[in-house]
Amino acid sequence: MILNPDNLDVRDCYKLLIGSVVPRPIAWASTVSRGGWRNLAPFSFFTVASRNPPTLAISIGPRTEGDRPTKDTLDNIRDTGELVINVVSLPLANAMHESSKVHPPKVDEFEAAGLAPAQCEAVSAPRVEEALVSMECRLDRVLPIGEDHLVLARMVRFHVRDDLYEDGRIDIAALQPLGRLAGDYTKVETIFGLPM
Amino acid sequence: MILNPDNLDVRDCYKLLIGSVVPRPIAWASTVSRGGWRNLAPFSFFTVASRNPPTLAISIGPRTEGDRPTKDTLDNIRDTGELVINVVSLPLANAMHESSKVHPPKVDEFEAAGLAPAQCEAVSAPRVEEALVSMECRLDRVLPIGEDHLVLARMVRFHVRDDLYEDGRIDIAALQPLGRLAGDYTKVETIFGLPM
Repeated sequence: MILNPDNLDVRDCYKLLIGSVVPRPIAWASTVSRGGWRNLAPFSFFTVASRNPPTLAISIGPRTEGDRPTKDTLDNIRDTGELVINVVSLPLANAMHESSKVHPPKVDEFEAAGLAPAQCEAVSAPRVEEALVSMECRLDRVLPIGEDHLVLARMVRFHVRDDLYEDGRIDIAALQPLGRLAGDYTKVETIFGLPM
Repeated sequence: MILNPDNLDVRDCYKLLIGSVVPRPIAWASTVSRGGWRNLAPFSFFTVASRNPPTLAISIGPRTEGDRPTKDTLDNIRDTGELVINVVSLPLANAMHESSKVHPPKVDEFEAAGLAPAQCEAVSAPRVEEALVSMECRLDRVLPIGEDHLVLARMVRFHVRDDLYEDGRIDIAALQPLGRLAGDYTKVETIFGLPM
């Protein structure tokens, strides 16, 4: 079957993308507004944009409710030039999901999700204390692409719980990263190499 | 533990990224050179850059061997403005891995991996006939970021095997997408929703 996106409505085309670009890592992004309000929200259009210097990419879609066009996360990143990307381990799945709900700008998603904000070293945005890995980032640039915004951000500090870091590698089995499918989630179970 | 990328060598910083941005989807990119030579190679720094118009992003690192600075895939995308992104299902894992090895530009990775090139509708690059999902793409832009190149490409045709597409959704369990971890792979096993 061959489908032409020009002949599909936006929602149906979106379903093809989220059903095919799988499994996706989740960037659980914590930010702070100019007024000092904390924000926390997950984004699964997330990847490494560059190895050196270490640069991450997140695509942020338009706001789905209310009268403003953009999401708090994007507004905060533009206003402060900072964000923290936390990794969602399996025991944090429900808290992540809680933080994904639509909240007014002055609701603190850390409180709503029962999480503790922890101080960072190089940025003023908080990290999620319960996260096993967090990456402090400074904005490189925001690229408008269609209705969305691609945020490129340079990783400036890397937090990892001591026991997950050995010989320069992250212990992924212990990290238990959550993966995103279309609307569902998956976890990392079987881990295997392929012979060279 | 807090690590500062400025104090790490590039390889160690890279290991933090590939160990934390997990699990990653794999873009199995097929291209053709100006001279008509086919190329096929996997990239796991891959995400959706924009929902509307449907735009995909792949980060391509520098060539690791030989005297040219860039990989064949990037050269071909720049020269022709086209690529096809194929999804790697579990039964195609070994063929994908074979295509990831370093080959001279005039080696056809389709042949090397025992795969059949199939004709596309809107682009001249071939798709992988054995793939259950393939996305024909036209280059939007190439952004140099540090030592890497972020390729943004618009999806112009979507191929899916008939039985995987139902009510506008892709059957991800049947697709069996391979996920990339640091150097290892994973597969989608448990699929679960989270309560709203």
